[in-house]
Amino acid sequence: MKFRERGMGIGQYPTGEKNCITDIPGVKIGHVTLDEQFEGTAGEYACTGVTAILPHGGNLFQEKVIGASYVINGFGKTTGLVQLDELGLIESPIMLTNTFAVPAVTHGTIQYMLENNPDIGDTTGTINIVTGECNDGYLNTIRKLPIKPEHARQAIENASNHACQEGAVGAGKGMVCFGYKGGIGTSSRIISDNQNHSYHLGCLVLSNFGGKIEFPADKYTTPINNKEVKNTPDGSIIIVLGTDVPLNDRQLKRIAKRCGIGLGRTGSNFSHGSGDIVIAFSNALKVPHQHDEDFEHHKYIREDHPIMNELFTAAAEVAEEAILNSLSQAETTNGRDGRIVYSLFHKEEIS
Amino acid sequence: MKFRERGMGIGQYPTGEKNCITDIPGVKIGHVTLDEQFEGTAGEYACTGVTAILPHGGNLFQEKVIGASYVINGFGKTTGLVQLDELGLIESPIMLTNTFAVPAVTHGTIQYMLENNPDIGDTTGTINIVTGECNDGYLNTIRKLPIKPEHARQAIENASNHACQEGAVGAGKGMVCFGYKGGIGTSSRIISDNQNHSYHLGCLVLSNFGGKIEFPADKYTTPINNKEVKNTPDGSIIIVLGTDVPLNDRQLKRIAKRCGIGLGRTGSNFSHGSGDIVIAFSNALKVPHQHDEDFEHHKYIREDHPIMNELFTAAAEVAEEAILNSLSQAETTNGRDGRIVYSLFHKEEIS
Amino acid sequence: MKFRERGMGIGQYPTGEKNCITDIPGVKIGHVTLDEQFEGTAGEYACTGVTAILPHGGNLFQEKVIGASYVINGFGKTTGLVQLDELGLIESPIMLTNTFAVPAVTHGTIQYMLENNPDIGDTTGTINIVTGECNDGYLNTIRKLPIKPEHARQAIENASNHACQEGAVGAGKGMVCFGYKGGIGTSSRIISDNQNHSYHLGCLVLSNFGGKIEFPADKYTTPINNKEVKNTPDGSIIIVLGTDVPLNDRQLKRIAKRCGIGLGRTGSNFSHGSGDIVIAFSNALKVPHQHDEDFEHHKYIREDHPIMNELFTAAAEVAEEAILNSLSQAETTNGRDGRIVYSLFHKEEIS
Amino acid sequence: MKFRERGMGIGQYPTGEKNCITDIPGVKIGHVTLDEQFEGTAGEYACTGVTAILPHGGNLFQEKVIGASYVINGFGKTTGLVQLDELGLIESPIMLTNTFAVPAVTHGTIQYMLENNPDIGDTTGTINIVTGECNDGYLNTIRKLPIKPEHARQAIENASNHACQEGAVGAGKGMVCFGYKGGIGTSSRIISDNQNHSYHLGCLVLSNFGGKIEFPADKYTTPINNKEVKNTPDGSIIIVLGTDVPLNDRQLKRIAKRCGIGLGRTGSNFSHGSGDIVIAFSNALKVPHQHDEDFEHHKYIREDHPIMNELFTAAAEVAEEAILNSLSQAETTNGRDGRIVYSLFHKEEIS
Repeated sequence: MKFRERGMGIGQYPTGEKNCITDIPGVKIGHVTLDEQFEGTAGEYACTGVTAILPHGGNLFQEKVIGASYVINGFGKTTGLVQLDELGLIESPIMLTNTFAVPAVTHGTIQYMLENNPDIGDTTGTINIVTGECNDGYLNTIRKLPIKPEHARQAIENASNHACQEGAVGAGKGMVCFGYKGGIGTSSRIISDNQNHSYHLGCLVLSNFGGKIEFPADKYTTPINNKEVKNTPDGSIIIVLGTDVPLNDRQLKRIAKRCGIGLGRTGSNFSHGSGDIVIAFSNALKVPHQHDEDFEHHKYIREDHPIMNELFTAAAEVAEEAILNSLSQAETTNGRDGRIVYSLFHKEEIS
Repeated sequence: MKFRERGMGIGQYPTGEKNCITDIPGVKIGHVTLDEQFEGTAGEYACTGVTAILPHGGNLFQEKVIGASYVINGFGKTTGLVQLDELGLIESPIMLTNTFAVPAVTHGTIQYMLENNPDIGDTTGTINIVTGECNDGYLNTIRKLPIKPEHARQAIENASNHACQEGAVGAGKGMVCFGYKGGIGTSSRIISDNQNHSYHLGCLVLSNFGGKIEFPADKYTTPINNKEVKNTPDGSIIIVLGTDVPLNDRQLKRIAKRCGIGLGRTGSNFSHGSGDIVIAFSNALKVPHQHDEDFEHHKYIREDHPIMNELFTAAAEVAEEAILNSLSQAETTNGRDGRIVYSLFHKEEIS
Repeated sequence: MKFRERGMGIGQYPTGEKNCITDIPGVKIGHVTLDEQFEGTAGEYACTGVTAILPHGGNLFQEKVIGASYVINGFGKTTGLVQLDELGLIESPIMLTNTFAVPAVTHGTIQYMLENNPDIGDTTGTINIVTGECNDGYLNTIRKLPIKPEHARQAIENASNHACQEGAVGAGKGMVCFGYKGGIGTSSRIISDNQNHSYHLGCLVLSNFGGKIEFPADKYTTPINNKEVKNTPDGSIIIVLGTDVPLNDRQLKRIAKRCGIGLGRTGSNFSHGSGDIVIAFSNALKVPHQHDEDFEHHKYIREDHPIMNELFTAAAEVAEEAILNSLSQAETTNGRDGRIVYSLFHKEEIS
Repeated sequence: MKFRERGMGIGQYPTGEKNCITDIPGVKIGHVTLDEQFEGTAGEYACTGVTAILPHGGNLFQEKVIGASYVINGFGKTTGLVQLDELGLIESPIMLTNTFAVPAVTHGTIQYMLENNPDIGDTTGTINIVTGECNDGYLNTIRKLPIKPEHARQAIENASNHACQEGAVGAGKGMVCFGYKGGIGTSSRIISDNQNHSYHLGCLVLSNFGGKIEFPADKYTTPINNKEVKNTPDGSIIIVLGTDVPLNDRQLKRIAKRCGIGLGRTGSNFSHGSGDIVIAFSNALKVPHQHDEDFEHHKYIREDHPIMNELFTAAAEVAEEAILNSLSQAETTNGRDGRIVYSLFHKEEIS
């Protein structure tokens, strides 16, 4: 169940049809989930996965999108941000997984992109892969490195524009948020300009942060599970923000920064050990890998247009609601060494 | 009246004795307030001022303090941040005023520091002044440039370690926040380490941001004034964060960043036209301008010590509460062209 | 005499007609120079000035230009960079002066802009002034604060598109570079695209950095003055880079960064106490302060177009040559307390 | 042959005993080199490798070193910088390899660190691996992904404190610099304080940048090979800077930035497609992963101590000389599809 079906919506702007990042035309999401005991072990368990976010359904290397990142707290191992910051472009699927699987997932994504682009690394340059991560080591036997390169490919190939699965799925399988079960959550908003053209802003999070004490249960007025929760080291959150509003990369970075507001409103104080990172894209412009013209012709929202403030507000809203959706949708989950992490909202599960 | 006297405190940590940034030993605050019609004009009005924050009561150039800044949204004219970011040191009072008075206040502060340091600009190098600002042009005839260099000196000389005045005073005289009267607000927290040594974290804000729609009145459960509010262009906020916890400048910057959480919790979405800037200092170490040793010996909190997360949480708390105090303490104020900005909380004033 | 008239040009690209930043159509430079003993003093001397760079000759607030900054070493007091970094726009003349005159010059520039724009601070927001500085305290009695706000206005009003004066003039009057007389220097390059359209890249520096030991006299193969040079604390350099190539602010920042290469090639190692800062603009697009459209339509050079690398190379060239021109054009200068700083190249002066 | 054996040293400071980054006590370097045709192919060739830099010979996760990075130009895929920038610590070997091998090498390094640290990912958090890269795709059939995780382990296990091999070795096997053969180069300097205590500054580069036209052959006065050179897309350089001077991470970042000066002096203009990145460490302080004290006690060089400027100068020197050493030591190399890249200096090889 989405969080707002529990009786409380977040913010002032209307959601998109699916309240999902796939409300943005062209965006696709795919998951691969691992959920199995390692053979011959007492309690070693693969409780992890991969999630792929495709900013559009075409060849992302040949048709790049405007991108930006914002590091809220840098205790994290996300890759690809150096080039993203220099050039303001995303040229691959955005991949999410567990901390130690970043190399495997990046490797698999490189393989996938090489197969689809015979020019890369031969007649043209290389490719930059953006892979975000959180540490799911409380439930997942992360030291066994269960994610393999082919899981990246599968996540990409699984991608669709349907309302995506949330909670304990894909990269979210083993994640823990405020001591309860977290993982994948998504939400969206509709923003309209003066000509009544409707744009979309969407967010997908991988939530794995926060202590129970930080969650402001009173604020959200929903009965929550008070079962004893896990108390593990600091977690992380990766926030993927997408839109079809025409923006330049500087504007996009400004909007990405406002996701931290939403994170703070859920109770987080960006704890020391948390890798809290925003990766943002606008698919309004497709930038070809190569062409013959001297100039780029770029149309983007005027900086002082009221839509900028609306996007700022909506970015805070979608981040907050995507986090709440990750909690609302995640079911109680069993992991390594007999550990259980309970759902925050599903009281019936923990009677 | 402090906001928490209205019945609602913010956060989990205890306040300092005065709930003021001057709870940090050594810190002093001074104000100069201008409140007068320009002679011979119909409605031109000086409704503005200067506030000085002294990280300690000694000679700040000769004994510098560790400093850091964090730009939440950079639509602002604060000076001194280039050198602060390079060296991690503050060597002057931190000055606050209106946007166009930054030069006058910086000039006056240079003069003050030159008088007290005959070596500056002669036998040693120059000095870096940090001056923050917000635009009080709704109430103040800012184009008339009423602030003069001597007002900076007066603010510095007025500084004391008492509970400082809040609201429509000093640099806060003409400021507007969420459409109501804002200005100066301050708060503090006590943080204890394992040996029960008590440290202080304090905050002083100059609040001038936000639209009425952003303020979450429900959350704060206090009856508020619903009088029609002013609707002006985007404002700003300067947040000065101080502490006596031993920290290096990188740690201080991390803590400063968390002030944005508190700002977001008051309802702000860091609007486009708002210069939202944090200036932070720790006065635990006094760094001499010159000495003969090869090495600095610096003791600071271990990065993964629980106090770091407590400071992150407390930084969000003090910023939120200092903003609420600025609103709670600010009285309905008259300014240029017959304009009035009403207090948010004082219902009786606006019957 | 320009440095290349001494027999050695820098780099591979042709210079513009005047080898001056005013080769960029629309750019204007103005100086005000102070050169007089303070009355009634033994040796206190105003040996300083102001230089104004106008990115175009119109109203810069109403028609802003794309801008960027790059801080090579941040031991400096330049103002205006916070907003420049956030918005990527310059909306005032770029002003240069001595360290303690930044407030006076910024104040005078605010006054000038207010007079020409009755909306600023009344019906619209405020204005961001960019003022760079170096410490001319070896020759100038900087503690006496001889620069007044009206000098800023005069520098702006003096601005023309002629080949600008170099050396010990304007803000460069009292500056010292590699122990010899430095100050204002300028240079330019012509860059052509595939359609043989010619663009301009120009640079103006305020040089005040470097120790004698750093200057690679051998490299430049010009006989230099070996007179004993002044040995003063670390200096600074402000590098203003301009172009009429259509660029976005991210591209401009990348190009600005390459000025550091040219600075390094003159021998500088970006010393600790040096405020080495680049301020860059492209006047190809004029961004109106307000208009009614939803979108900006921006044409800029494709990121991987060969012109980008040409601009990178040319940025290093113009910075190096502008510094050499500042040395080549600066005459031996007398300052406070009977001090003399000798010209690097004019052997005849120091027989 | 080291470059200075050809008759021209760089800079003013004396080299360490080996003129190698291993002159810094504790630092070790290890290479693995691949040089073989892929079986059953016409000309597909593994011409690549891995190089490991160990800041000290102990357990780097349990005893971390102060670290910093500086991105000169961000068209690159280096991993680990997000956390390095947040915390200022390096906790793994610094690994170098080709662009597409970053995941394999990072994966292998994680495996190695997991084996040596049973707590990682179980009772404590995860680990951050820093892996730098250049694109060796001109000589190496990079699309075949010949580097495997075990090569990372081998490079680490091969590490010694001897004078390390340079040129076409390890990660440098397939690299090209200024159109000639580049790769691994290293150099060092001795810096002494007032008490005649000697410190070391060392540099190791992976050089793969520059066009032939950029190399200033005249400056270096050594006869060079004029054979037709390869003309490939933009390359990159990774610069690893190490020292035993006690420094904090902010100081280290300042010093790292000066490596760009040395790079510029070799002729580079930091071209668009070049990932030019500095990774720096000081092994003077070993920061334990966990301990029970509240405070860190850190001794570091005073910021305005003359050693800072000496380190700035020396950082430019070692970067320039390490690049020249990579060219001087690299032999003419055969790679994929019958391609040859010639040595810059070894005339005899190309008669």
